Amino acid sequence: MKTSDKMIEQILESYDKHELTRRIDEDNIVSRDTIIMLVKEIRKLLFPGYFDNMTVRNEYVRYLVGEKLECIEHNLRKQVERALKNNKDRCCDKELEEKAKDMVYKFIDKIPEIREYLATDIQAAYNGDPAAYSTEEIIYCYPGVFAITVYRVAHELWQLEVPMIPRIMSEYAHNLTGIDIHPGATIGKYFFIDHGTGIVIGETTVIGDNVKIYQGVTLGGLSTRKGQLLKGVKRHPTIGNNVTIYSNTSILGGETVIGNDVIIGGNAFIVNSVSEGMKVNIANPQLEYTVDKKYENEFWDWSI
Amino acid sequence: MKTSDKMIEQILESYDKHELTRRIDEDNIVSRDTIIMLVKEIRKLLFPGYFDNMTVRNEYVRYLVGEKLECIEHNLRKQVERALKNNKDRCCDKELEEKAKDMVYKFIDKIPEIREYLATDIQAAYNGDPAAYSTEEIIYCYPGVFAITVYRVAHELWQLEVPMIPRIMSEYAHNLTGIDIHPGATIGKYFFIDHGTGIVIGETTVIGDNVKIYQGVTLGGLSTRKGQLLKGVKRHPTIGNNVTIYSNTSILGGETVIGNDVIIGGNAFIVNSVSEGMKVNIANPQLEYTVDKKYENEFWDWSI
Amino acid sequence: MKTSDKMIEQILESYDKHELTRRIDEDNIVSRDTIIMLVKEIRKLLFPGYFDNMTVRNEYVRYLVGEKLECIEHNLRKQVERALKNNKDRCCDKELEEKAKDMVYKFIDKIPEIREYLATDIQAAYNGDPAAYSTEEIIYCYPGVFAITVYRVAHELWQLEVPMIPRIMSEYAHNLTGIDIHPGATIGKYFFIDHGTGIVIGETTVIGDNVKIYQGVTLGGLSTRKGQLLKGVKRHPTIGNNVTIYSNTSILGGETVIGNDVIIGGNAFIVNSVSEGMKVNIANPQLEYTVDKKYENEFWDWSI
Repeated sequence: MKTSDKMIEQILESYDKHELTRRIDEDNIVSRDTIIMLVKEIRKLLFPGYFDNMTVRNEYVRYLVGEKLECIEHNLRKQVERALKNNKDRCCDKELEEKAKDMVYKFIDKIPEIREYLATDIQAAYNGDPAAYSTEEIIYCYPGVFAITVYRVAHELWQLEVPMIPRIMSEYAHNLTGIDIHPGATIGKYFFIDHGTGIVIGETTVIGDNVKIYQGVTLGGLSTRKGQLLKGVKRHPTIGNNVTIYSNTSILGGETVIGNDVIIGGNAFIVNSVSEGMKVNIANPQLEYTVDKKYENEFWDWSI
Repeated sequence: MKTSDKMIEQILESYDKHELTRRIDEDNIVSRDTIIMLVKEIRKLLFPGYFDNMTVRNEYVRYLVGEKLECIEHNLRKQVERALKNNKDRCCDKELEEKAKDMVYKFIDKIPEIREYLATDIQAAYNGDPAAYSTEEIIYCYPGVFAITVYRVAHELWQLEVPMIPRIMSEYAHNLTGIDIHPGATIGKYFFIDHGTGIVIGETTVIGDNVKIYQGVTLGGLSTRKGQLLKGVKRHPTIGNNVTIYSNTSILGGETVIGNDVIIGGNAFIVNSVSEGMKVNIANPQLEYTVDKKYENEFWDWSI
Repeated sequence: MKTSDKMIEQILESYDKHELTRRIDEDNIVSRDTIIMLVKEIRKLLFPGYFDNMTVRNEYVRYLVGEKLECIEHNLRKQVERALKNNKDRCCDKELEEKAKDMVYKFIDKIPEIREYLATDIQAAYNGDPAAYSTEEIIYCYPGVFAITVYRVAHELWQLEVPMIPRIMSEYAHNLTGIDIHPGATIGKYFFIDHGTGIVIGETTVIGDNVKIYQGVTLGGLSTRKGQLLKGVKRHPTIGNNVTIYSNTSILGGETVIGNDVIIGGNAFIVNSVSEGMKVNIANPQLEYTVDKKYENEFWDWSI
């Protein structure tokens, strides 16, 4: 059965009317599928032997690394080219291709440094979580480790001013883990995220070394009501070294500074700076206890 | 090695014993995989050129739309038939097939209107988020946009009283984004969700135009202890126009009305109505600051 | 274009330097893909006819069960062997293979019991959620049901002391649902999770029968600052029978006991025990209402 021409016509009219949501006669920007494939390959390179299908043998590891780098270099370059060309006004194609090549080399050059940071993150997770049975379990299973890995990769591309791709990477990690770290954030060594679902770390956040963050923590802006007028402004907090932030706490504002060696309890809402060495908790949570007189009836409904 | 007959027997006995969790000698209800494929195809139709593998050329766009509509029409109709037939008591097969066909046509007819709403949502995201670099980035990467897109599609099917399928669609978006919008909710134009993880918008929620919602916001029921006895009752709040609700705030209850032009700060817990033009914040968050005397010791453990 | 040897060299040096994040010349631990395939097959066995591609016919169901058991038994045994062998110090290969076989048989033996528990969970979801239209919808769509299913499977493997695999399973469910239930937790019958995103249930949590939990609830540790020194200690709360815990509430600490028939309202932060039959709410949420004088201007920015 054929769909009626009238329906096609209506949809084409809608394409003419709303330009914002169509890309007709324009090249594809980037391929999300290729970016995800690249994240997986880069992860194999970062943790050799962990996510490969076969045992990684020492005598072949050099060739394996060479092969993976070629794959990454080739595919990432193509995607970076596309992302650069999409900002059409900038300059001519040839120049952008050179620029893309240069960006990718600079990125690959950073891989050993990313590994160095990740080694500290794994160590922090093992030291910090009594439920961890081995560092292997952490590398294999912990969503926080996955999110930090993708963040550290995306952040290097962000630093190189690659458009679009870092954000696609971080949203991929966000999809899988519920942890939303903007690639623009700055995060030190020995960073540990436990559980992680609901964490948001905004674009201009700065985090020191040895920081531990639990599920539901927001490091966010105080008000974003001004929208695009706030672009580039420091809107998110600064967190010192050796800070622990327990679950579901929000710390907001670009001028909010959490000093070194601070512990912040769960469910707090913090919009002012906290000085070094302090422990902050919500003052006895105000609770109201009543005996639920109608309870038996209601329970009866529920337990049918 | 063969698994012993005794084990098979035990499992078959369990099938006999618990009927609720088996479907033996019954047709499949719907195929989740097909529904997900349909969501992807519909999204390509809604944002032409964004999620296709190839450039969408203007001279071919008519044929592309025709092809996609045929695919959607054919597959969606089959799934709607199955979903209708599963409510066996209703009527005869022939009638249900006609009904399914009619529902699918009515749905396709709504596609231009869905595009109209989505264009406003993209605009709202760009205006409202200082971290947004382009509308393309928003369409490609923002989980909130994905969740709203799926909601707007599922809601049309919900309005047509298609069983099961709208809920499968919305749970697919929930899986990917952590944003749980019931397809029964009513949501106006220029709707923006930032970050989004943990958002819950209940079945009987009504939301006006120009509303902005952050991660962890619940628009929920006040008590659901009566379970099925509450079916059909308005249990979720009503939100006016031009309202911003910051992260992790809960607004609960079917009689709770948030007026136009209201701003609600983060981490609030609201069970009463708020009148037009008000700004609501939690009164200075009660915090307790102490110097952590045992700190150095503990830190020593942690930093091993 | 060849990637330069210098880059390969740098990465190899980094492999030598950071041993924690590499597995060279070591066998693969387990295959995450195989574990996910196993979860899907086990789910088909638990809910026959729901997730199969074809109608499950009564006359063939015996063969179908036999076939699935062989697949599960074969693949799970191989993965358990690998997980056991990874703890190299334990004993010789032959012994571990026998042990793996034994563990898998014991697991398969538990399948009818898992089905018994799941039947009660589905019933609880239907009774407890006014938005539920049928038990089929619940089994098909509810993320909470998926998370509980995977938990009940992973918990049996955890009880048998299978390493690594239970955690991979529970993190797979966590990825898809945002619900993080540690396989070590103990959970009674008629357990219902609504919406679910952001829920964390820690390793040593004990939950009775007829418990209902909403999105964002943490059943967690009070302080984990001592890291690995806390291993094995009861760090997470005990929840009685017939308890409802509304959204975004945190209940923390290994000595915190919530009695039978308790209702705990949303957004509460609870670090002390609650006795039987009580209803606990946050005392009127302290809110501050102001008229936002600068509002019209700001709105103008936002609505551009």
